[in-house]
Amino acid sequence: MTVINSAIIGASGYSGAEVFKILLGHPQTRVTAITSTSLQGQCISELYPNLKSLTDMAFTSYSPSLAKTNDIIFLALPHGQAMSLVPELAAAGSAKIIDLSGDFRLPASEYELWYDQAHASPELLASAVYGLSELNESAVTGAHLVSNPGCYPTGIVLGLAPLLTAKATGGPVVATCLSGISGAGRSPSDLTSFCRVENNVTAYKVAGVHQHIPEIEMSLTKLAQDSMSVVFTPLLGPFARGIFSNMAVPLRGGLDDKKIRDLYIDFYKEKPFIKILEKGVFPEVKSVSGSNYCHIGLEVDTRTNQVIVISAIDNLVKGAAGQAVQNMNLMFKIDETTGLTQVGLYP
Amino acid sequence: MTVINSAIIGASGYSGAEVFKILLGHPQTRVTAITSTSLQGQCISELYPNLKSLTDMAFTSYSPSLAKTNDIIFLALPHGQAMSLVPELAAAGSAKIIDLSGDFRLPASEYELWYDQAHASPELLASAVYGLSELNESAVTGAHLVSNPGCYPTGIVLGLAPLLTAKATGGPVVATCLSGISGAGRSPSDLTSFCRVENNVTAYKVAGVHQHIPEIEMSLTKLAQDSMSVVFTPLLGPFARGIFSNMAVPLRGGLDDKKIRDLYIDFYKEKPFIKILEKGVFPEVKSVSGSNYCHIGLEVDTRTNQVIVISAIDNLVKGAAGQAVQNMNLMFKIDETTGLTQVGLYP
Amino acid sequence: MTVINSAIIGASGYSGAEVFKILLGHPQTRVTAITSTSLQGQCISELYPNLKSLTDMAFTSYSPSLAKTNDIIFLALPHGQAMSLVPELAAAGSAKIIDLSGDFRLPASEYELWYDQAHASPELLASAVYGLSELNESAVTGAHLVSNPGCYPTGIVLGLAPLLTAKATGGPVVATCLSGISGAGRSPSDLTSFCRVENNVTAYKVAGVHQHIPEIEMSLTKLAQDSMSVVFTPLLGPFARGIFSNMAVPLRGGLDDKKIRDLYIDFYKEKPFIKILEKGVFPEVKSVSGSNYCHIGLEVDTRTNQVIVISAIDNLVKGAAGQAVQNMNLMFKIDETTGLTQVGLYP
Amino acid sequence: MTVINSAIIGASGYSGAEVFKILLGHPQTRVTAITSTSLQGQCISELYPNLKSLTDMAFTSYSPSLAKTNDIIFLALPHGQAMSLVPELAAAGSAKIIDLSGDFRLPASEYELWYDQAHASPELLASAVYGLSELNESAVTGAHLVSNPGCYPTGIVLGLAPLLTAKATGGPVVATCLSGISGAGRSPSDLTSFCRVENNVTAYKVAGVHQHIPEIEMSLTKLAQDSMSVVFTPLLGPFARGIFSNMAVPLRGGLDDKKIRDLYIDFYKEKPFIKILEKGVFPEVKSVSGSNYCHIGLEVDTRTNQVIVISAIDNLVKGAAGQAVQNMNLMFKIDETTGLTQVGLYP
Repeated sequence: MTVINSAIIGASGYSGAEVFKILLGHPQTRVTAITSTSLQGQCISELYPNLKSLTDMAFTSYSPSLAKTNDIIFLALPHGQAMSLVPELAAAGSAKIIDLSGDFRLPASEYELWYDQAHASPELLASAVYGLSELNESAVTGAHLVSNPGCYPTGIVLGLAPLLTAKATGGPVVATCLSGISGAGRSPSDLTSFCRVENNVTAYKVAGVHQHIPEIEMSLTKLAQDSMSVVFTPLLGPFARGIFSNMAVPLRGGLDDKKIRDLYIDFYKEKPFIKILEKGVFPEVKSVSGSNYCHIGLEVDTRTNQVIVISAIDNLVKGAAGQAVQNMNLMFKIDETTGLTQVGLYP
Repeated sequence: MTVINSAIIGASGYSGAEVFKILLGHPQTRVTAITSTSLQGQCISELYPNLKSLTDMAFTSYSPSLAKTNDIIFLALPHGQAMSLVPELAAAGSAKIIDLSGDFRLPASEYELWYDQAHASPELLASAVYGLSELNESAVTGAHLVSNPGCYPTGIVLGLAPLLTAKATGGPVVATCLSGISGAGRSPSDLTSFCRVENNVTAYKVAGVHQHIPEIEMSLTKLAQDSMSVVFTPLLGPFARGIFSNMAVPLRGGLDDKKIRDLYIDFYKEKPFIKILEKGVFPEVKSVSGSNYCHIGLEVDTRTNQVIVISAIDNLVKGAAGQAVQNMNLMFKIDETTGLTQVGLYP
Repeated sequence: MTVINSAIIGASGYSGAEVFKILLGHPQTRVTAITSTSLQGQCISELYPNLKSLTDMAFTSYSPSLAKTNDIIFLALPHGQAMSLVPELAAAGSAKIIDLSGDFRLPASEYELWYDQAHASPELLASAVYGLSELNESAVTGAHLVSNPGCYPTGIVLGLAPLLTAKATGGPVVATCLSGISGAGRSPSDLTSFCRVENNVTAYKVAGVHQHIPEIEMSLTKLAQDSMSVVFTPLLGPFARGIFSNMAVPLRGGLDDKKIRDLYIDFYKEKPFIKILEKGVFPEVKSVSGSNYCHIGLEVDTRTNQVIVISAIDNLVKGAAGQAVQNMNLMFKIDETTGLTQVGLYP
Repeated sequence: MTVINSAIIGASGYSGAEVFKILLGHPQTRVTAITSTSLQGQCISELYPNLKSLTDMAFTSYSPSLAKTNDIIFLALPHGQAMSLVPELAAAGSAKIIDLSGDFRLPASEYELWYDQAHASPELLASAVYGLSELNESAVTGAHLVSNPGCYPTGIVLGLAPLLTAKATGGPVVATCLSGISGAGRSPSDLTSFCRVENNVTAYKVAGVHQHIPEIEMSLTKLAQDSMSVVFTPLLGPFARGIFSNMAVPLRGGLDDKKIRDLYIDFYKEKPFIKILEKGVFPEVKSVSGSNYCHIGLEVDTRTNQVIVISAIDNLVKGAAGQAVQNMNLMFKIDETTGLTQVGLYP
């Protein structure tokens, strides 16, 4: 059995640390380095005490040469940093790269528009493969650089793909999504403080300004082979992990509940992490908490001729670190579920 | 100063008990009786220990004669019971009546359709005044029987009224609403148990089947003077109190953010419980928790020509007991804010 | 009716803002100024959106002259600041002063030991009256400078006072107390972030190092008229407000459950904010959330000859701002419950 | 590799379902049957939607013959039922048995006293091995019938064992323990409903009446080889999983913090699931949530000559199902960590 040597750049944040935790239990991976700019020398288990007993690894500094000594590099940095590192990593060695940030998800012009900065490596964008594992499996398998999807796009696009592929809607889709607070990152702020969050729901980046919108619309448009728009409202709810996406989709007609359900079951029949729920049952965030699963439920509203599609994922797993490891598995041609068998924590 | 003698029928449930708690602090009211079918003789403070030190009242049995010895009767019973009691209360005495259930909100035919039972007193429906206080003040003031609105309709209709009155939209409105768990009532069930609810979001009555839909559409249609439909998804979130309503509304055009905001400010300028938030600020459930306020925020999504309107209320206060007391104040021609000055608990 | 003009120094923090919220509903008080070092010009309702509609007041800068234009000054600053301000306030005007920090609770030598800094105004310590309202009412009534008790001492000392006064124990008391997260203040930190706090319990300042220990022991010793020590463990639990104190107290013998209960009922019979619960019923944090009440329950463990006493308060109200207003009421000889009738938010 | 055939009696409750979930990921186990009295025919994934995609198993009825067709039987029933089933299972086949209830933990006379019923199979008590895995490994290894410890005893006894073995204390121990709500079982009740639990702490079975007390004292006494008593207060906190035990222990003297810490490290040095935390660091419930670990922290209070020991476990895993599987591993002489490598969910 081959061992895949891996390094995680930016392992102190929630996504990077979750990649680390998953790889600790991955039978074919060895983590050789975890880096942090500000916490070098500190043990990761000081920040994540669930890892006590399991590891003594400490954060080290970043070096491009990690691409020489490893088979894969996970980049788990804030937006705007990976695009500068990828070229030097590629120059220094042959490690494959998975970037968990938004840096390689959009064309340069769109990136500039939504992330409010010029792209540092536009020449690399063409070779970056968008890693929504279930929808892009063969491209990911052959990729050297994978751009891991955003958390909201993962939940929304997985929830709508069968409908769009069947040309069952022309949109617009109204997507109202609740994210757990871990989606706002590990840095303490008023927005993520317990006293603000508990017993509360808040909205942010309301009305067409969230940077995941072009990523969502690009995927939807590609699937529909027609221009698709989304009215997207991101909300924060009082839970740590998860994205609950509620989508109202106008139907083109002719499709009833049974046909749509069959469409979904067929579309995902070979996808181990996607579960289409029985009629009358809807996804719960808690069911997938800590796991790489995406649960999808749906029901046609015959009064308004819209279909309500609901999906639930763990934002840190299927919405980030788990999908990154799933992509790694594909890139190294091992079973895509390897190391990803953790079951949701329920109750 | 007149004292209003009041009785609460069904005071063991969350809504009835909240009416009781509010009236304890109301300077012009005296509660003479609180009834319960199953808990007679038990002190209300055993169920609601926040009331210890404040009251020794115990539950008694219901009798129509309460309408003779009181000025006002609050009916806080499960749906389907009030419609049988109102006629006998009206026969027994002259007390005004406020019904917090759904029994007097819809025409008989619609009631039968959505509540799945025939209406017991269809002859009374014409005289029942729909008590959305801000929109129906003069009718409430003169009413003998007020039908208190549902919690979801209160949040949604207050949020949309200025838009509809201005004929700014033809719909359909996509309303995705999160309710706190108290909305499911005091009876323990799997759905309301802590281990199921915490860190979770669940959907129920998805796709056009919730009984509040006709109530919402009736109000919207009346305001718009044109047929309006709503795509409504009710969700339960991990918080005790509150309804957070996110509404996506297609605009007829010509209205920008500034004009819409002015419309709202003008519409509600004399309404003490409605607060239109500044641009860029959105309602939070916690801000209104325990209070009778409704906070409203909005933003136009120019990409899709829809306006996102968000409202937040406390489901037990503005969405039930508080609005009932507000209606009582109107019916007795005292200041509508009397007894309703409780501020949201924040943090 | 006299109006008491008041200023709150340090009104952006949780305690100061809670004083402000309480005074907004106090019929005999007018708040003339709320100060903040870093947020001058900002409206307090931006930080506390529950106050929107209720106030337009903005933070101003501090000046000693506030003691000239007001009848009372509330100091709600971090420890170590009030002791420098009190002399200049006293020099500038005749306003009475209530300090919510730890600066005037201990003798200078103890202060230096536990707060790790010299006291700036040791000459004022003798005149500062310790404001545990129920136990020190007459001294508070005549005080010019009141030192408001800490939150843990309030819960523990109120819970033990009848036992100690009756010389029923020689200690040591083992007090294990859970505080809500608001006790850690408004500044965001890893310790107060939602993802760290939810579904968690943490301990801090374990084993005799918390600065409230000398304050607790001083009160217990005074009540017992004998040296008393406490084994105190402060914990943080996943709730916003409240202190739940569980105390195991070795009994000197001769006292059974009934006698002790009678002792408590008699001791507090004229204290409106203290409620001794019936046998078999124990305090709940939620019952007093948002209120100035202290609930106390107790039971003798005959196997070990210890009595378990449990008390619950809201740390921001009875443990800080509410007790400060209660002390103000006493100092101005108005009913001690004025402005403090808010009922716990339950459910 | 041998496959261990196993059946779970009472698999619909939290403990039984957690055994099932753990065994699903156990490489050497096959679950042949999961029984339920009231839910026969229903899929376990309907109750535990985290198991969707993972299993189609449905509940079946109980039969003693399961002891013939399986290698191990897990009994996860309410107290009072297992003691009647064990004899008929033993008669029907040779399967080893692990009972997760309290039925085989106490001598018959103590059982009758604390569980308020006569023991149905007192003749079997002598052969039942108390399965606190770390303290009783060799006996468990050779056992046919293992009595799995209670959740509170597991947290408390693991936390105190090194101190008692070293005769460092004569007691009494004051143990104040917070349990997550899952400890109260899956049946909905007022006590476990979200609106009651959230933002709350409650006490129950206060002052020497909890049935885990004799189990705790028996273990402590055996370890100390001297009579030991515990002043035990069980609390419920607003979290789903976990037991946080805070223990104040009077020291016999002569032992400082360093010596005690060394004692603990040495005592548990070969125990993979026990982690002694560094000085100044204390256990958090969330760190062990979903895992079989027990974290222990301690600090000497030199002022009072007591040592504060804090332990944290997941009540459903190390406090029930995980320890049961750990015992199964010992009984079948496979590595005790097999199938138990799940890491705590943090954040």
